[in-house]
Amino acid sequence: MTRPVPEFPTSLGTSDPTTITLLGQDLARDLMGKVSFGELAYWLLTLQRPTPRQSRLFEAVLLGLADHGFTPTAIAARLTYLSAPDAIQGALAAGLLGGGSRFLGVTEDTGRFLAGVLAEAGEHPSDEAGWDALAERAIAARKAAGLLVPGLGHPVHKEGDPRTPVIIRIAHEEDLYGPHLALFEAVGRVHPRILGRTLPLNGAGVSGAALADLGLPLELLRGTVLLARCAGLLGHIAEEVRRPMANDVYLTVDRNATYVDPE
Amino acid sequence: MTRPVPEFPTSLGTSDPTTITLLGQDLARDLMGKVSFGELAYWLLTLQRPTPRQSRLFEAVLLGLADHGFTPTAIAARLTYLSAPDAIQGALAAGLLGGGSRFLGVTEDTGRFLAGVLAEAGEHPSDEAGWDALAERAIAARKAAGLLVPGLGHPVHKEGDPRTPVIIRIAHEEDLYGPHLALFEAVGRVHPRILGRTLPLNGAGVSGAALADLGLPLELLRGTVLLARCAGLLGHIAEEVRRPMANDVYLTVDRNATYVDPE
Amino acid sequence: MTRPVPEFPTSLGTSDPTTITLLGQDLARDLMGKVSFGELAYWLLTLQRPTPRQSRLFEAVLLGLADHGFTPTAIAARLTYLSAPDAIQGALAAGLLGGGSRFLGVTEDTGRFLAGVLAEAGEHPSDEAGWDALAERAIAARKAAGLLVPGLGHPVHKEGDPRTPVIIRIAHEEDLYGPHLALFEAVGRVHPRILGRTLPLNGAGVSGAALADLGLPLELLRGTVLLARCAGLLGHIAEEVRRPMANDVYLTVDRNATYVDPE
Amino acid sequence: MTRPVPEFPTSLGTSDPTTITLLGQDLARDLMGKVSFGELAYWLLTLQRPTPRQSRLFEAVLLGLADHGFTPTAIAARLTYLSAPDAIQGALAAGLLGGGSRFLGVTEDTGRFLAGVLAEAGEHPSDEAGWDALAERAIAARKAAGLLVPGLGHPVHKEGDPRTPVIIRIAHEEDLYGPHLALFEAVGRVHPRILGRTLPLNGAGVSGAALADLGLPLELLRGTVLLARCAGLLGHIAEEVRRPMANDVYLTVDRNATYVDPE
Repeated sequence: MTRPVPEFPTSLGTSDPTTITLLGQDLARDLMGKVSFGELAYWLLTLQRPTPRQSRLFEAVLLGLADHGFTPTAIAARLTYLSAPDAIQGALAAGLLGGGSRFLGVTEDTGRFLAGVLAEAGEHPSDEAGWDALAERAIAARKAAGLLVPGLGHPVHKEGDPRTPVIIRIAHEEDLYGPHLALFEAVGRVHPRILGRTLPLNGAGVSGAALADLGLPLELLRGTVLLARCAGLLGHIAEEVRRPMANDVYLTVDRNATYVDPE
Repeated sequence: MTRPVPEFPTSLGTSDPTTITLLGQDLARDLMGKVSFGELAYWLLTLQRPTPRQSRLFEAVLLGLADHGFTPTAIAARLTYLSAPDAIQGALAAGLLGGGSRFLGVTEDTGRFLAGVLAEAGEHPSDEAGWDALAERAIAARKAAGLLVPGLGHPVHKEGDPRTPVIIRIAHEEDLYGPHLALFEAVGRVHPRILGRTLPLNGAGVSGAALADLGLPLELLRGTVLLARCAGLLGHIAEEVRRPMANDVYLTVDRNATYVDPE
Repeated sequence: MTRPVPEFPTSLGTSDPTTITLLGQDLARDLMGKVSFGELAYWLLTLQRPTPRQSRLFEAVLLGLADHGFTPTAIAARLTYLSAPDAIQGALAAGLLGGGSRFLGVTEDTGRFLAGVLAEAGEHPSDEAGWDALAERAIAARKAAGLLVPGLGHPVHKEGDPRTPVIIRIAHEEDLYGPHLALFEAVGRVHPRILGRTLPLNGAGVSGAALADLGLPLELLRGTVLLARCAGLLGHIAEEVRRPMANDVYLTVDRNATYVDPE
Repeated sequence: MTRPVPEFPTSLGTSDPTTITLLGQDLARDLMGKVSFGELAYWLLTLQRPTPRQSRLFEAVLLGLADHGFTPTAIAARLTYLSAPDAIQGALAAGLLGGGSRFLGVTEDTGRFLAGVLAEAGEHPSDEAGWDALAERAIAARKAAGLLVPGLGHPVHKEGDPRTPVIIRIAHEEDLYGPHLALFEAVGRVHPRILGRTLPLNGAGVSGAALADLGLPLELLRGTVLLARCAGLLGHIAEEVRRPMANDVYLTVDRNATYVDPE
């Protein structure tokens, strides 16, 4: 005895003998060669085809997040490739698995923080003083709750993350500068008064603000960072294929290991 | 006592307090807003900035491979998201881990097969008859060795994969039609004589031929497919967020499970 | 120019040409054939060799958590094996990646909840009435905060999880029944008064209490569940090798897929 | 319209409101507290309950393979934990993903090599001279084909892997010394004549021979190594929780990174 199986609805890919449909479009006729990969990714994440302006801002964000050299995740991907070169998918997956709270979470944390403040505030301020007042209240509340303000500070770019003004400029150029970016800039202006020190608005944070202004679902901001990072990790795996360094990492650790008695 | 540590060379990302460099370019000034995400991915994989023509073919390939609906990997990603919605990186990684020999390997297998035949042949044929003769010899050798010819056949598109002619057309339009595609088309023409039945040239296979003609390293063809699939899998996770179906998959299996005595 | 590299301390494995040392023991001479795999796992997690009593309780917990049939994670592992049978590590990893908050997190959540209540209470109650009062306050506080009480309830074992009394009995038999189990049993007695309905103490929850009484670090309770699940997932992969079912899952979903227009 | 769903057979876990069944046993009544975790793993992999003798050899193999200090996979797991401490399943999965051909594949490669030689030989030799002759032919065939003999050689234990004699001794003690171990020992005796140099029989190789003599399916030898490694990786994650070193690995690489122009 078997029970009836439910239907499984989807708006993504389907196919029949002569056609492949993706997002309701004829993949071969209407998408391939006509839509960029970045556009498709935006479309898959939002179910809406981006305008050229939206694509430009979205892809600028992806570029800013794609690679940062020898991050822990890039090293983990290379070490995994060293161990299992026959399964490149494992090396890529290992790198993506570092996409958690600590290094890759800032974009989503910032987007959620800004969206939460805006949702609670209701109407958007009409001038800079209004934005500053809203930002001050939000930062003070985080401080009172013992929470950090996401998107502030950078270990290397202490005087300013070079990506931040570029994202803001492109958002203006493309007429996509919205309330999340406005609030984020206000955070940048007012936080020294409340926190007692001046921190840069970092690139991961401004990316969260821009993606939120673009309308990406907040639950998928970290997923968007992962897509960007996927390209960077493949760059690292490609470099590991051409000029390996993971074995040197391994030997450096192994040769400098010291045994410590467990009490 | 510690030993000196080696240097770790890279051509990817580096940074100092005011600048982020990626691939020797100033990320904020020269790449963001000026280079598409697909271009950057090509650049990371090959260390060469693609021309607009190369980008168009490369991105067309990525689009063709991004999603195929409810594949085993898409279902695995959704089930993982169901179990661990707090770790979206795990759902994406789980989906990518299905990128092995059986479903996602055809692109690389085809690229390697074609490149191997070309390398052994030395000079390229000068006319269609020459390509056909080369393809015939290669197919006969595979058959004699009991091996399948990669890139032939499709479970759904039995009369022809709609992506194949589009990739070939775009390669011609962009003046990027090279020996791998020429040999692959010859395989399509001559295989019925040797194999005794007519199979379509599939989209995964033509993608391998096109990527090889673009000059992508053969070791990274599967990696390129994984990048494309990354966008598709994020589309599935986004859809699972909006309209979940993984729990129905789970219940369908669980409710129709039957215990079988282990002998 | 290179900088000096730090030392990397470890209490786990080291080796020289004639000896392998693990946890300060001679692996070949003192561990292999003399220590069970479960004992070693406990030792690795806590840096303390378990007594036979501790081993028995620890391994009973592992057995209770090893497998639950066609869970989402088991299905994900099988689908990944279907797609990439050449990389069995990927199938196992995909299954483990479902070990997140929703299905596998209860053990750690329960352990942390109980440990938090005990830490706040300071001295342990001296009789059942004292434990009940402590449990009542803790449950009331969770309820007031809008939080669930972890370890309560089960979708199938509505009248009682058969694993729960066994873990409690073994803890008594081995003289390892401690404050976490005492508090957990009190939760079982008093929660109906506060929550207005009677729920079973589930096996994942009692496992968290028992592991906490054994002294396992709270940060590693989920890790312990993952070890147990690792054996279960390998059982599923072994079964998939012997008698595949993942392709039927895939076809069931794919054939009942229905396209829904995105808006 | 929906189609009927197939049944999904399993011999692993099932449950009803009052009972959990695993491998046809009542989990709570017959397994928990009575069966060790190693026994259960063997049972899950083979569908046969191991005898105490089989358990002892099986668990000795698991112990020998559990950890080797700062391997690339252990470092990858720790780096992933550093990046995403909230998702411990990702750190474990990242470590397991290095379980590929290069470092963890020897056990399965050796088991398959030995089983292949035995299958081809048909009847087993009756004395040492016969085993040696069989091993000589097999090694000569590998050499002629340009293939390495799996299970020979070790980067550290050049004069002999301390695990090898222990596994062989335990197999004798437990009356489980079978043809795979006999052939492997013969390989150890005769290879210098054919290969022109003397290499140790390594621990991974003898483990493959012992697991094959135990009757584990060859397709699951790598899976068995992964189970062993799972415990070791959790040991590394536990150590990373107690005394972190992954950030030092990251900084050591990052600070000694040098940019190299692409070309």
